[in-house]
Amino acid sequence: MNPIVMKFGGSSVENIEKMQAIAQRIQQKKTDGFDVVVVVSAMGKTTNQLLELARQASTNPSKREIDLLISTGEQVSISLLSMILNENGQSSIGLTGFQAGIKTSGLHTKNKIEDIDIEKVEKHLRDGKIVVVAGFQGLNQDGDITTLGRGGSDTTAVALGAKLNCRVEIYTDVEGIYGVDPRLYPNAKKIDMISYEEMKEMAFLGAKVMEPRSIEIGHRFAVEILVASAHQNTPGTLIKEFDPSMETKSITGLSISERVILVSINHLPSQSRHTADLFIKLAQNEINVDMISQTNTPDGFVNLAFTASSEDTHLINDVLTELQKKYDDVIISTDTNIVKVSVVGMAMRTQSGVAATLFELFAANDIDYKLITTSEISISYTISSALKEKAVHLIASAFNL
Amino acid sequence: MNPIVMKFGGSSVENIEKMQAIAQRIQQKKTDGFDVVVVVSAMGKTTNQLLELARQASTNPSKREIDLLISTGEQVSISLLSMILNENGQSSIGLTGFQAGIKTSGLHTKNKIEDIDIEKVEKHLRDGKIVVVAGFQGLNQDGDITTLGRGGSDTTAVALGAKLNCRVEIYTDVEGIYGVDPRLYPNAKKIDMISYEEMKEMAFLGAKVMEPRSIEIGHRFAVEILVASAHQNTPGTLIKEFDPSMETKSITGLSISERVILVSINHLPSQSRHTADLFIKLAQNEINVDMISQTNTPDGFVNLAFTASSEDTHLINDVLTELQKKYDDVIISTDTNIVKVSVVGMAMRTQSGVAATLFELFAANDIDYKLITTSEISISYTISSALKEKAVHLIASAFNL
Repeated sequence: MNPIVMKFGGSSVENIEKMQAIAQRIQQKKTDGFDVVVVVSAMGKTTNQLLELARQASTNPSKREIDLLISTGEQVSISLLSMILNENGQSSIGLTGFQAGIKTSGLHTKNKIEDIDIEKVEKHLRDGKIVVVAGFQGLNQDGDITTLGRGGSDTTAVALGAKLNCRVEIYTDVEGIYGVDPRLYPNAKKIDMISYEEMKEMAFLGAKVMEPRSIEIGHRFAVEILVASAHQNTPGTLIKEFDPSMETKSITGLSISERVILVSINHLPSQSRHTADLFIKLAQNEINVDMISQTNTPDGFVNLAFTASSEDTHLINDVLTELQKKYDDVIISTDTNIVKVSVVGMAMRTQSGVAATLFELFAANDIDYKLITTSEISISYTISSALKEKAVHLIASAFNL
Repeated sequence: MNPIVMKFGGSSVENIEKMQAIAQRIQQKKTDGFDVVVVVSAMGKTTNQLLELARQASTNPSKREIDLLISTGEQVSISLLSMILNENGQSSIGLTGFQAGIKTSGLHTKNKIEDIDIEKVEKHLRDGKIVVVAGFQGLNQDGDITTLGRGGSDTTAVALGAKLNCRVEIYTDVEGIYGVDPRLYPNAKKIDMISYEEMKEMAFLGAKVMEPRSIEIGHRFAVEILVASAHQNTPGTLIKEFDPSMETKSITGLSISERVILVSINHLPSQSRHTADLFIKLAQNEINVDMISQTNTPDGFVNLAFTASSEDTHLINDVLTELQKKYDDVIISTDTNIVKVSVVGMAMRTQSGVAATLFELFAANDIDYKLITTSEISISYTISSALKEKAVHLIASAFNL
């Protein structure tokens, strides 16, 4: 067998005409000698339309029933795409998540793939069929239909690639992964190859082409992932094991996170208990804290700052109001007019001076930053939203992104 | 356990408001002390919309993929209805055909229920949940999703009633079964009780409230079936074992079949081979012949007449053209301006004279009929479409339907 997995998102299957177009690409792959597994998402905005029905049915719909509801979206796509392939004379079969042997566990609407019982898919491939699998869904141990959360169809595709020990091709509306979002920096260059680590870091830091989870699976099972255009025959970006030849650039990519809230808390009494209480309270409210920075003053106080998603502003304000009540002297401020700029590059591991170059760049151009965090292969800064475009252009041109 | 099965069709679940209305009725049943299983169809015209997509995808879509496609319709209904029940504080769970253990076999789009693995439904009932099952669908031995064809949700409901050994309530847009269609005869009387045999015969002969197959299952397993209004709290019609107390009426009901073609073939050489050839040819073209009548002439010829669905007119004409070529002297005519009027009553078994009364009625009122067929509990006549209304009024008033 010579298998390959091709994944198409919702906009590639939003109507019959678009499905007919991708059917041509799929059949070409078969003609090229591959045993083709196709993973598809729901048609266009179907999932949102179904969720709107759920919202009308219930203020707080059971997540199990949400999964039962929205999983129908991909089931419609697989049956129609399979009909089109059969119509074209290419034997094909559509399989739902459970029919493709995808076993999941975890919380409804956020399940994880545990394993794939791959025999059925392999049998149909051996019979010469193109196997069209519903992305985003599976079956848990209780026999309930589950979904995999955001980016779930990518996860299905990569997990199938891992099980079939083959390459996965993710077809999207863009031509591949860019060092910086072309909408922000029109001269942005497409990346030909990128390591799993860098891609994961970029995805975590706000690049939206792929979800970190699917890249993580690709990394663990060494599945080569090609991200390419669904519309054009251009080379795309290959995500694979880190290879020293990739290391010529000191920075591979730049990500922007918008919708950030920066919280500054000054004059908090300097005992670790107080800081811990605050973060426990935030966690209890399911607020994901992103960047954290803390400094201590000589007179026994702590100055603390952190960022989170501005979607949680209401919840955060409730926590802060409680904090203010408890400590009269604490000075609290919040700012939502900020963005997080992150630069990512495996080279940071081995090359020194990337951070220095960035600090110099920001200083020479009057870009003030509030918080800084670093990981092994990335540095992130929060800056004023007004400076976003300026910072992107400076960094992208300095590092040739 | 004190189970009951309630079935609601597509128009009862066509939007969230209608689902909220039936949720009230369902919860009342639970309050009344029943362990409630609900069977629902797809919302409104969903199935037709999905079939239209299939038609766009393929001129001859694979029936397996059609089943995969249209089974999503009921899956959407069960999840939304279950959300509404949960929202109302009534614990509920939605189960697809395969999750409810419904095992089927046969041809795709026309599967039959083989068995139901009822444990899962029973477990949820014991847990106090209302179990909402997707009608019309199941899973075959190959693990493919199947559908049950026309009236399939009724079949699901009655089969569940058979397995749970309980009563089934079919909620419809009408108040029950009428002796004659109220659209044809405004004074039509609702029947309070009817035997399986009569109901089956009426369904076969054109009454559209229930499909014969579901009544057949009800009969075999002695499942009491109530057909009642989904909108009003009126008593409905109970379909049950024949009971001599039902036998006061000589005729229980009158059915009209429209879209009938009557074929008359005269002067066919009188050898059984010729007649057999004709009916074999019709069967090979999947033309269902309904009524057949044959007479022989003293000079060695056969006069033959039969009826079929006028939807098959094209196919029938092809067969007739061949026949004409083969036998020069044969005289063939077809007529689509006819209807079949059938009267049904268990009493025909024991009371003589029903047929005589009908013949007398037709003769006295100048109603000519072309073909007559009889079964143990029914008589059918083909008459001119123009006489339909007259015949219906005469029979309905004569037999107090």
